[in-house]
Amino acid sequence: MSTSAAARSGGDGATDGARGSTLWHFAFCPSSRSIRLAMAELGLSFELEEERVWEWRPGFVAMNPAGELPVAAFANGLVVAGAYAISEYLDETFDALAGKAGFALFPGSAAERAEVRRLVDWFHGKMSRDVTREALNEKVYSRVVPGALGAPDPGVLIALRENLRYHLSYVDHLADQRNWLAGDELSFADLAAGAHLSVLDYLDEIGWERWPAAKSWYQRLKSRPSFRPLLAERLPGLSPPTCYADLDF
Amino acid sequence: MSTSAAARSGGDGATDGARGSTLWHFAFCPSSRSIRLAMAELGLSFELEEERVWEWRPGFVAMNPAGELPVAAFANGLVVAGAYAISEYLDETFDALAGKAGFALFPGSAAERAEVRRLVDWFHGKMSRDVTREALNEKVYSRVVPGALGAPDPGVLIALRENLRYHLSYVDHLADQRNWLAGDELSFADLAAGAHLSVLDYLDEIGWERWPAAKSWYQRLKSRPSFRPLLAERLPGLSPPTCYADLDF
Repeated sequence: MSTSAAARSGGDGATDGARGSTLWHFAFCPSSRSIRLAMAELGLSFELEEERVWEWRPGFVAMNPAGELPVAAFANGLVVAGAYAISEYLDETFDALAGKAGFALFPGSAAERAEVRRLVDWFHGKMSRDVTREALNEKVYSRVVPGALGAPDPGVLIALRENLRYHLSYVDHLADQRNWLAGDELSFADLAAGAHLSVLDYLDEIGWERWPAAKSWYQRLKSRPSFRPLLAERLPGLSPPTCYADLDF
Repeated sequence: MSTSAAARSGGDGATDGARGSTLWHFAFCPSSRSIRLAMAELGLSFELEEERVWEWRPGFVAMNPAGELPVAAFANGLVVAGAYAISEYLDETFDALAGKAGFALFPGSAAERAEVRRLVDWFHGKMSRDVTREALNEKVYSRVVPGALGAPDPGVLIALRENLRYHLSYVDHLADQRNWLAGDELSFADLAAGAHLSVLDYLDEIGWERWPAAKSWYQRLKSRPSFRPLLAERLPGLSPPTCYADLDF
């Protein structure tokens, strides 16, 4: 993993007030991925800094006493911690930050925005608790965190895979009923879902053939330019399945 | 615990467009408590319905496929699931719902609102994972969920009490530096914090004497009329410490 990188989505010459912004992240952290996708979809440029939160680096904990990712430092000096606060801040300051990108994190009416948020909470909350957090502990952090246990626990993997089936069936249901997961428009719900599912896909935990509507939705999502930097990242010693970065998987 | 109750905060005759709203909750669920506090502070009247989520009641799962609390059904027919989506919906539709209550869930500028949300995430996210969820599993759900393990696990209690000290030291620090946890104004951050800490206080897990600034902040918070219904609730077979509902504890 590179320790610093720059991402920029295609734009239409919109003013970019976030130039000089920095996002502290970890490549396989779904919350970090969701904000990278959000900033790229909004057309914001930002520097990426890798943070190994388990090192409890004083400079990082001073920015976010929770010691968690992601953390954004905007060009105006404001530091915002956590995917929830960052996503809502991006939504509220969108005009000032980026001009018109033709994309809103929470599009539509108050009711439609509530549906986006319900699903963001589904992925960053429920799916994280049920599946992703343990999958990362077993397969990723066990490799990179000094002193962590090595081999994955088969019992844990069996339980999270059972949970994952429920989540994939729900994504498949939503994708079958709607254009994007929360409704007609791409929203932060898709980006949060894509953040978790891309990590699980890297870990070869998703049998896409069983979920045709979810697969079709994910193909559309991962084909977007915002996804490219994520699909290029690799964890040393753990390769993704061959279809991971394949847009026609 | 009563299975239905009505709450209404004092108001100044504001139009109450939420009349007829229903909130599905569980008395010792912190997310439910935070929304009950929010609706009361906003001056909204609502019916409470107790939901025992472990029963996986079809009518409830149809409203929220995540099977989690709280869920609000508003008088306009809209169903919103989860403390995140409900709190933001209440914020966005405040004028239409309730008129002017002199209270905002997320007061101030975009930066100040980001700080409120960072702290809401701290309590509903980090504190829930570190402390409250396990404390409830060990001490509350073990009593009320059929088939759950009975006696608390001493090892789990030791670990969560160590985590709780970090959280209380942080609340104490914030309360020492600020009027309310996120800044000058009462906000949803205080209500989320109070929701978790009131449950832990009921379970006699908080030694307030060690944290004088936190204690002073919590005394002010629990003295508000919005807190009264919560402090009156009891779990059969498990009494709170004598100071739990004492406003001068």
